[in-house]
Amino acid sequence: MATTPPLSPTARSTVRRGKARARQDREELFAVLDSCLIAHLGVQVGATPMVLPTGYGHDRHTMYLHGSTGAASLRAAASGAPVCVTVTRVDAIVYARSAFHHSMNYASAVVQGNLREVRDDAEKWRGLELITEHLAPGSWDHSRRPSRRELAATAVLALDLSEASVKLRTGPPGDDEEDVQLSPYSGTWAGVLPLDSTWGAPQPCPLLPSDVPVPPHIAHR
Amino acid sequence: MATTPPLSPTARSTVRRGKARARQDREELFAVLDSCLIAHLGVQVGATPMVLPTGYGHDRHTMYLHGSTGAASLRAAASGAPVCVTVTRVDAIVYARSAFHHSMNYASAVVQGNLREVRDDAEKWRGLELITEHLAPGSWDHSRRPSRRELAATAVLALDLSEASVKLRTGPPGDDEEDVQLSPYSGTWAGVLPLDSTWGAPQPCPLLPSDVPVPPHIAHR
Repeated sequence: MATTPPLSPTARSTVRRGKARARQDREELFAVLDSCLIAHLGVQVGATPMVLPTGYGHDRHTMYLHGSTGAASLRAAASGAPVCVTVTRVDAIVYARSAFHHSMNYASAVVQGNLREVRDDAEKWRGLELITEHLAPGSWDHSRRPSRRELAATAVLALDLSEASVKLRTGPPGDDEEDVQLSPYSGTWAGVLPLDSTWGAPQPCPLLPSDVPVPPHIAHR
Repeated sequence: MATTPPLSPTARSTVRRGKARARQDREELFAVLDSCLIAHLGVQVGATPMVLPTGYGHDRHTMYLHGSTGAASLRAAASGAPVCVTVTRVDAIVYARSAFHHSMNYASAVVQGNLREVRDDAEKWRGLELITEHLAPGSWDHSRRPSRRELAATAVLALDLSEASVKLRTGPPGDDEEDVQLSPYSGTWAGVLPLDSTWGAPQPCPLLPSDVPVPPHIAHR
């Protein structure tokens, strides 16, 4: 990955608050994107900012989003307006001796740029594959591929990953020295409560014949 | 709750796409806010939309956010600019017979309005209590309360909950009739894979005396 450019190449994507939590390695960006399921897309629609949850996929150069061709916010974003796409993973609650130093351990990636509507059929197909495989690895080969009608009804949007920043918080609370050392707060429990995401048991569709087994790409997720 | 106004009272907060997933009951808004940990705050900063993850709290009328008094995006938002705050919970991956109908079961709340910086000390205190208790229930009484210096260093921002919309998706995939009925896709596994969030074992701060037990409000979370 010697040729991969670093993160935060522009003024607006340079982390100003909490520099200690900023990361410069582009691999950290991919790690955040790969470990989360949804992004929040921000775009100005008229005088109003809109923030919409959305699925996504990426190929380390470009992030792909999709949606109905009718959605107003997507239409605005697809017209080339600037957007901000943020992906956040919460790892733990940080309990401190002081209310002020309560926090979360988390990872967040902020990608800025201008969305481009994908018109080329091959790239659109590839974008849909990346989005589907991000949501449900193995499903692109297992399920029916999009028809021409479905392809036409779906807007695929591309966002360059070059302008991005990543912030992480890890580790124990950062209490003030006097709260750590002196009573009454030196004996106040402080630490980290991890938040884990786990997959539950697959629930078959009621319309599925009862003899269809759960395939390995779902059973082993 | 007879006096609670319904959701989506304005044109911009009326759900246009996927009306079947829209909810009108204000209790649904509180259920989403109460079951999630973070929000994504969207605000236009100059020509650039910014989407930032943030903790929050609410009292059924007002949502409170906080941050350092120095943060550029917060300063912009606190100046009364319009914002959009979105809270999203992913409940499951929906595996369909077709790639096109793959989806997520989720709940999302979108709150729009203008942030107001809280100047009144009593409301600021109350806002911080709500934010702390949302993040870490029981911590407001258990930990050291903010000092005057800490209070001064924290911006507390209020957002009226009146203009909000909620969308939910639940249930099995919504495949096309022909994929459900006819081979080869009638035998393709389809259903729902739940995504569960669970708390791990509390990890004490390395600086904590070893005889301090995990208090009930953390052990029983």
